[in-house]
Amino acid sequence: MTSDALAQHIGEVTLIDQHVHGCWSAAGDLRRFENALNEANTEPIVGSGFDSQLGFAVRAHCGPVLGLPKHVDPQSYWEHRSRLSETELARTFLPAAGVSDWLVDTGIAADTASLARMAELSGGRAHEVVRLEEVAEQAARTPGDYAAAFDDILQRRAASAVGTKSILAYRGGFEGDLSEPSAGQVAEAAGRWRDDGGIRLRDRVLLRFGLHRALRLGKPLQFHVGLGDRDCDLHKTNPLLLLDFLRRSGDTPIVLLHCYPYEREAGYLAQAFNNVYVDGGLSVNQLGARAPAFVARLLELAPFGKILYSSDGFGPAELHFLGAALWRKAIHRVLGDFVADDDWSERDAIRVVDLIAHDNAAGLYGV
Amino acid sequence: MTSDALAQHIGEVTLIDQHVHGCWSAAGDLRRFENALNEANTEPIVGSGFDSQLGFAVRAHCGPVLGLPKHVDPQSYWEHRSRLSETELARTFLPAAGVSDWLVDTGIAADTASLARMAELSGGRAHEVVRLEEVAEQAARTPGDYAAAFDDILQRRAASAVGTKSILAYRGGFEGDLSEPSAGQVAEAAGRWRDDGGIRLRDRVLLRFGLHRALRLGKPLQFHVGLGDRDCDLHKTNPLLLLDFLRRSGDTPIVLLHCYPYEREAGYLAQAFNNVYVDGGLSVNQLGARAPAFVARLLELAPFGKILYSSDGFGPAELHFLGAALWRKAIHRVLGDFVADDDWSERDAIRVVDLIAHDNAAGLYGV
Amino acid sequence: MTSDALAQHIGEVTLIDQHVHGCWSAAGDLRRFENALNEANTEPIVGSGFDSQLGFAVRAHCGPVLGLPKHVDPQSYWEHRSRLSETELARTFLPAAGVSDWLVDTGIAADTASLARMAELSGGRAHEVVRLEEVAEQAARTPGDYAAAFDDILQRRAASAVGTKSILAYRGGFEGDLSEPSAGQVAEAAGRWRDDGGIRLRDRVLLRFGLHRALRLGKPLQFHVGLGDRDCDLHKTNPLLLLDFLRRSGDTPIVLLHCYPYEREAGYLAQAFNNVYVDGGLSVNQLGARAPAFVARLLELAPFGKILYSSDGFGPAELHFLGAALWRKAIHRVLGDFVADDDWSERDAIRVVDLIAHDNAAGLYGV
Repeated sequence: MTSDALAQHIGEVTLIDQHVHGCWSAAGDLRRFENALNEANTEPIVGSGFDSQLGFAVRAHCGPVLGLPKHVDPQSYWEHRSRLSETELARTFLPAAGVSDWLVDTGIAADTASLARMAELSGGRAHEVVRLEEVAEQAARTPGDYAAAFDDILQRRAASAVGTKSILAYRGGFEGDLSEPSAGQVAEAAGRWRDDGGIRLRDRVLLRFGLHRALRLGKPLQFHVGLGDRDCDLHKTNPLLLLDFLRRSGDTPIVLLHCYPYEREAGYLAQAFNNVYVDGGLSVNQLGARAPAFVARLLELAPFGKILYSSDGFGPAELHFLGAALWRKAIHRVLGDFVADDDWSERDAIRVVDLIAHDNAAGLYGV
Repeated sequence: MTSDALAQHIGEVTLIDQHVHGCWSAAGDLRRFENALNEANTEPIVGSGFDSQLGFAVRAHCGPVLGLPKHVDPQSYWEHRSRLSETELARTFLPAAGVSDWLVDTGIAADTASLARMAELSGGRAHEVVRLEEVAEQAARTPGDYAAAFDDILQRRAASAVGTKSILAYRGGFEGDLSEPSAGQVAEAAGRWRDDGGIRLRDRVLLRFGLHRALRLGKPLQFHVGLGDRDCDLHKTNPLLLLDFLRRSGDTPIVLLHCYPYEREAGYLAQAFNNVYVDGGLSVNQLGARAPAFVARLLELAPFGKILYSSDGFGPAELHFLGAALWRKAIHRVLGDFVADDDWSERDAIRVVDLIAHDNAAGLYGV
Repeated sequence: MTSDALAQHIGEVTLIDQHVHGCWSAAGDLRRFENALNEANTEPIVGSGFDSQLGFAVRAHCGPVLGLPKHVDPQSYWEHRSRLSETELARTFLPAAGVSDWLVDTGIAADTASLARMAELSGGRAHEVVRLEEVAEQAARTPGDYAAAFDDILQRRAASAVGTKSILAYRGGFEGDLSEPSAGQVAEAAGRWRDDGGIRLRDRVLLRFGLHRALRLGKPLQFHVGLGDRDCDLHKTNPLLLLDFLRRSGDTPIVLLHCYPYEREAGYLAQAFNNVYVDGGLSVNQLGARAPAFVARLLELAPFGKILYSSDGFGPAELHFLGAALWRKAIHRVLGDFVADDDWSERDAIRVVDLIAHDNAAGLYGV
């Protein structure tokens, strides 16, 4: 085997995208597109959304997929893109990602492709990840006992789903008590929340209740960690603040998503707990040409059987493809250097690529 | 265009040094010089001040400017330097930096060059940045209503200044409430502070008052962030602790200075808020041969239109030059690699150099 | 001198391993070995302990020392290893590390080699580092006044020791008041603790008492910082939380151990305080092929006279060797790049290697 073997393997390996959302269903304007390239800002951005690592990466990697020259200028990229429908774009970018299975978080209310539609557009399989806060909001709207309604909805929805997800990061963060509340506390908090209208769950008792119900369910529980929009207090999403929760989480797999700028802390947790896994989706897209440095840091303390791939694509179909393209480039740079320095054998490098690309996720989610 | 074009452009590009202090006016001894190479220690340092990345960088990059061999030994460097006056040194190093405009924070009481003198010594232009805590101390010494005095002094001084600066980082850090205090709270706090002598402002009410007056003024407001001397609690200067303040800061540009070791967090904020900018001055000098790694991290989440250059030079004229020399070397390494890997086009790289070197600052400060 | 000179010097330089534990005395099974490769997990690990940077590094660097091919597969490595006694392994790996002096923390109760045995097995010298929490537990078992007993034991044990060590990180972390308690507070806390059985010290008053006794003793005081097993709250081991303590620590040298992921913060403290030193032991082993990135970050703000080498080897004799092998490879990569880029002279690089390898530790501990 030569180092070409590693490059070839990385170029061809099939991925499981273990955390993703639907791509857009309907046409939109340039403002929508440019804002979709910015993760953190919740206001209409000022200046060109292309002037970022992600914007440059779209021009470098997505341009050629559309038949445009590499590094095509932003205006030409947009003009070309706007002549295509979102369906045409999805039929181009989704298959190009080389993904066999999409694990779709359906908890964002937006005009995006459904599970079935994602499968159809990509030619792959799609599986659902159920957002716990959405289950809670459904339970709030269901008459009768809140806890019973939550359990009922979760059981029903999870039956066909591969895992659950929490956005506690956006609902006050990880600081403070995350132990299981009592039935009385849950009933009282649910009453209060329903009286307030039962929208956008921020009640800590009910958030904690949902987490512990997910632990009991036993399917992998994904946590949004780190990088997100500015509605979250980024310093309260440091995954080390989950330590007490993890210490009492039993055997249910816990997956830490995104993780920037806490990827080294997340890797520590993946080493510290048999049931903790890490993923760098979203961050890889956001970092563009800097993705290799991030992917390298994810390969520090985390055991290689605990690292997963995802794109966290949401909206533009470019992102579902770009996550894969940037990850392939980054993992090749990082592992290729390990092999070139004779720190790793190429055989080992290829095996670790397979673990991260699909084997770990296949074992974890049973897909 | 070849990659030589990028190297040549970076070598020649004119800089706006958007945060700097005066260089020394009067001669001093070796101890003063060596202590000026150490940012964090507030005591006379033990051991050679040359034994650090900054010390090595002075010998590598400043030696040749004085006609000495690269990597000249410390003793020879000092002997040669001590035969020159600070004026001669400034007339050598300041023009060698390739800086057209110096934005000078005049808030440090020290025997350093004035604004006019910086312009004269460098052959460039100098503009003032007004330190808010100095305005507060002037207002404390002015009879009558504190708030009115503060407003009056700020208006008067800011009329000819390009921005303001806060050293809240050194006055208790960013934790806690940073909302605007009421007029009654300000009057009461000012009375208390005046009774105590009105020196070295640490009162949180008055610090908050100053920040909100600066927001109202609308000129760019610079914050010392991260790396500084040990009088600050470094963990309380994490810029994420400014999140609530930034959420209510309106349109006034906010510039995060230095940022080490929080440059990734600062980049996140520059993406999250249209009015937030980042700068790596001081850190680049302190890191010497490691500056490229830092400059690369500044190029992660921050949009390219939100990144600024500065040296934060203060004292030895070497630092005003070295900031530029190290930045040029670092940005060439980082962007050169992006281009070599075909992640960026060279044309894009040259444009981003111009943005950081001068275009962003020119637009922001109107210089 | 050519760059070969730097490589040759690094390959041959003798090390002082300034923080280490004994290697195993008795044979054990594969489970023990694989768990010893994982630092953070306190439970029996699931999956192969070889599937990590450290596991890969053992196969790459320790295999050949045993006459196996580089990157030998895990099973073959284990089979070969299990045919050798721990004594045979130690007699192979310890001398191969190129260490002249081992500074042994004797505070872990485990079936590991004694000081004398470490010297004998390695052919080097061994010196003791006294763990303060063990002294406290000995004092708790001694009749009479606790403080007097502590002082007596510390004086007696320290007479032949080169320093002390605190694992405050594992006993609640660095947050909160670390000032010296009064005699009355100590007596009261000691009474309470003795009544509770006097095991596993977690009382903050007595922990603080021990630290201040160590400061008074004046010998170097080592702190476990950052990376460790999950019993510690990693976010409470950020060394910046020691700032107040360091500001009042006088002249007694303080050594920050391990430091991951806070190595940049630790470097800042080494610059900020004349009496603070940093060390990257344990982290270098854990990071394997990623060790160069970590070693590079340790070379940012810390003055070069304040950086120390250690392996933190404990258990498998591989770790005592591997720390040295990975450090040599990492420092060569980092300094070799500085020299190749003409940021440092090779002469300077060789001098810094000597400082970190032995000169700094020799001066600090008088060995």
